Amino acid sequence: MLNKAVLPPGLSKERFAAALAEYRAIVGDQWVLVDLDQLTPYSRLMVPDDPLNHQPCGAIAPVSVAEIQRILAVSNKYKIPLWTISVGRNFGYGEAAPATPGQMVLDLRRMNRIIEVDPVLGTAVVEPGVTFKQLQDYLVEHDLPFWFNKPAPAPVVGPMGFTLERGMGYTRYQEQAQNFSGMEVVLADGSVVRTGMGGVENAKTWQAYRWGYGPWVDGLFLQSNLGIVTKLGLWLMKRPASHVTWAAGFADMKGAARAVEMLRDLRMDGVVDNGMVFHMSYGVALTQRRADIFKGPGAIPDAMWAGIAQQAGLTVWSAAGTIFGYPEQVKVNLAILKKSMEEIGGQFITEQQVSGPASIMFNNIKMITTNELSLEDFAIFNYRGAGGAWFAPVIPAKAEDALACYETMQRVLSEYGFDYIGGYMIGYSGRHFDAATILLFDRDNPEELQRASACYNKLVDTCAAAGYALYRAGTPLMKKTADIYGPAQKALNARLKSALDPNHILAPGKSGIA
Amino acid sequence: MLNKAVLPPGLSKERFAAALAEYRAIVGDQWVLVDLDQLTPYSRLMVPDDPLNHQPCGAIAPVSVAEIQRILAVSNKYKIPLWTISVGRNFGYGEAAPATPGQMVLDLRRMNRIIEVDPVLGTAVVEPGVTFKQLQDYLVEHDLPFWFNKPAPAPVVGPMGFTLERGMGYTRYQEQAQNFSGMEVVLADGSVVRTGMGGVENAKTWQAYRWGYGPWVDGLFLQSNLGIVTKLGLWLMKRPASHVTWAAGFADMKGAARAVEMLRDLRMDGVVDNGMVFHMSYGVALTQRRADIFKGPGAIPDAMWAGIAQQAGLTVWSAAGTIFGYPEQVKVNLAILKKSMEEIGGQFITEQQVSGPASIMFNNIKMITTNELSLEDFAIFNYRGAGGAWFAPVIPAKAEDALACYETMQRVLSEYGFDYIGGYMIGYSGRHFDAATILLFDRDNPEELQRASACYNKLVDTCAAAGYALYRAGTPLMKKTADIYGPAQKALNARLKSALDPNHILAPGKSGIA
Repeated sequence: MLNKAVLPPGLSKERFAAALAEYRAIVGDQWVLVDLDQLTPYSRLMVPDDPLNHQPCGAIAPVSVAEIQRILAVSNKYKIPLWTISVGRNFGYGEAAPATPGQMVLDLRRMNRIIEVDPVLGTAVVEPGVTFKQLQDYLVEHDLPFWFNKPAPAPVVGPMGFTLERGMGYTRYQEQAQNFSGMEVVLADGSVVRTGMGGVENAKTWQAYRWGYGPWVDGLFLQSNLGIVTKLGLWLMKRPASHVTWAAGFADMKGAARAVEMLRDLRMDGVVDNGMVFHMSYGVALTQRRADIFKGPGAIPDAMWAGIAQQAGLTVWSAAGTIFGYPEQVKVNLAILKKSMEEIGGQFITEQQVSGPASIMFNNIKMITTNELSLEDFAIFNYRGAGGAWFAPVIPAKAEDALACYETMQRVLSEYGFDYIGGYMIGYSGRHFDAATILLFDRDNPEELQRASACYNKLVDTCAAAGYALYRAGTPLMKKTADIYGPAQKALNARLKSALDPNHILAPGKSGIA
Repeated sequence: MLNKAVLPPGLSKERFAAALAEYRAIVGDQWVLVDLDQLTPYSRLMVPDDPLNHQPCGAIAPVSVAEIQRILAVSNKYKIPLWTISVGRNFGYGEAAPATPGQMVLDLRRMNRIIEVDPVLGTAVVEPGVTFKQLQDYLVEHDLPFWFNKPAPAPVVGPMGFTLERGMGYTRYQEQAQNFSGMEVVLADGSVVRTGMGGVENAKTWQAYRWGYGPWVDGLFLQSNLGIVTKLGLWLMKRPASHVTWAAGFADMKGAARAVEMLRDLRMDGVVDNGMVFHMSYGVALTQRRADIFKGPGAIPDAMWAGIAQQAGLTVWSAAGTIFGYPEQVKVNLAILKKSMEEIGGQFITEQQVSGPASIMFNNIKMITTNELSLEDFAIFNYRGAGGAWFAPVIPAKAEDALACYETMQRVLSEYGFDYIGGYMIGYSGRHFDAATILLFDRDNPEELQRASACYNKLVDTCAAAGYALYRAGTPLMKKTADIYGPAQKALNARLKSALDPNHILAPGKSGIA
């Protein structure tokens, strides 16, 4: 796929060769990759862009903090930027490719130990390469009564990237940024900091209490290039005694917007822990190929979605989630939820009552909101032809904003001939929703690829202008997104960057921090 | 109380006079205080120490961000350190006195606007000088269905200090650090940063979504001297449909330790939102003077507590809290809680059943866990003679640690002739408890004052050595506490400090950051 090797910016071939020799002496020859075919996995993009903008000069895979420290010394000496990845499968946003060309990918997949699980407190200490599958296997093997917060493609990704990229989960814990405690971070100069209670000798609370004493620095290492996180404390979710997956159908976006407000109130009242509101296009895209259902030009018209829904006995919009707890808690909360959803016109149903075409959607909701691991969500990339990129502006949990954001996205997508496929995911406090939307396109069609890129950029701008900014951005969109957050944040980030990484060797361009 | 004025470190009397003239030109003569009697309120300490170590050179009270910016320019010019306070009543930890002598207190009490309350999302934007009383009056006046997280002395303190000092509340929200969204911060050079979504023009989610894009910097301004926070987004708690205050009595510390574990599990199962476990000494100290119940030397012996308890028909230890929710939720959760507490030997009772001496305690618990504002908790300072300082090491939510921490504290306190008065407050995730303990002493007895200081220091050291470090420290203990968190955190804080405040004019010594 790649045609020609690239060098680190400003470095001669000879100097790079000298640096590679030093890197090899640290990790061994086989863990320094520079051949073009070896670098292909580190060059893929989800959001369409010119691959040359993101081609790495190589990749290096250390196995310990000590090796990372030595790699940093070499990188500081030669000024070779390091683009750190954990499992490197940030599907939907960026995969493993660096923000700018010529960076060396620092691949931490080999550091994959589950260092400790506290069976009483339900906490775990993990290294960057640990996957959710591995964590689940560990919990099963040790018969520990815990689940964990996880994203949709959980089997092949891991808690480190999920946490550091501020992913959104669907269990009781939802926003992962609220649910971790303590890090070990290697700074650009090789110094190691254990945050929070981890600084205290013999601390018994590194994973139990997250805030420590004095300024809380952990936030600095989220969506960041200010350090390399090598250990992370996770809060596991206690396995609930029981759970019931539910859904409420709504005929149109106005109903969906009412559901957003209702979920907000129910969350603030402690009735639900999680919840989402989504368009039926999501379910269709998961199970069908677009070419089989629509031949016309442009986006699938609203009327056709309504027709598909009617034929299948489904509604165009649904709210859904899973209620967890002791059976008597579930019963009471489910009754409040049912009454609330019916009051705003929702057709309420639980997993016990479902049958027919809705079962597929129910299984999917149940899978992502419980501890099942599945790659079924990946089927969505087949809808149009291998291409897809997530796009999730943040909205306040108000009907008017749910409506306005949907209409904005729908209009822009239609303009470029793409379908609206997505929904709204409730945030931790109930006060915001992620308007999670996936732009699906045919990766093998150059014209469509270019159109997708233009559309994605237009979506970012148009939503931001309406007050709905992204909380996460694919690699090609990082600079644009950081610009949207304004000059003051940019200037502060630049000062922090210069203080902690004066040679700018850690992932330049990450989150728009150059 | 103060005898002699002090100057900013390294500044001549003449230069200071010149600086004062410039300060006065900014805020007006009446808002620059240098007379010793005017400075007395800014010189008080809770944790005993030599007042000369904390005497300010003056105080200045601006009314706007623009005035703060101009004050910073003067302070940078003359290198006059500014010790920022919001309401300045950090009772139990530090009040308003600076960490080192010769600082100018930057008193933000006049900036006391409630800028905005979103009646749908339940968020508020407040300035530093806003008190909880003011916030409650606002909510009542506008008939808004919200409560808020608050500390015990809520009427006279405010949400800004409570949040920035990482206070612990007792409503549904408990740990305040989990429950705010967005700040406006003035940096030492006068630049203003709005964090999170606040950087986005027309952002609709500044108070709704806390994490923004890129590194999360808000944590840097908690327990910190890296900036001056001038606006803060609060998450208010939706007023619950109903609530019931409960308690469970335990005969001894072993029972109390079992209650700690049970509360942890119930919290992780979503049965309780809050909870505490406390010794009866706390209730006694609130309502009686020590001299009336004990004349002997040294600490009150265990046997005497048991006797007092028996006589009053109380137990030495209690677990307690308030269950919130719709009546049917409260009923179910209360039943689970009652069964759980009885299983571990607790005598369970609710506010509906209470009578006799236990009523006083119940009223106190109900007051601090609901939206009532009261200063009753201050009565505790009368127990021994005006003196008192809180001390709260963090423990993992395990019986063995609750027991070990109690025994350690009890031993040290006894050694110095002080009574153990305190308990354990559950943290946000249920995985840690604050071992909140108050060292009460006679402030007018110089020997006892000195003994209290020695005892407090010994408590900090002994608990830390056992793995239980403080999450908060009184001004005289800041350096010691920061030392306990080790050299790596200290070095990182120092780098951040130099990057953001190269002249070190913001509150040197705060949280041990010089």
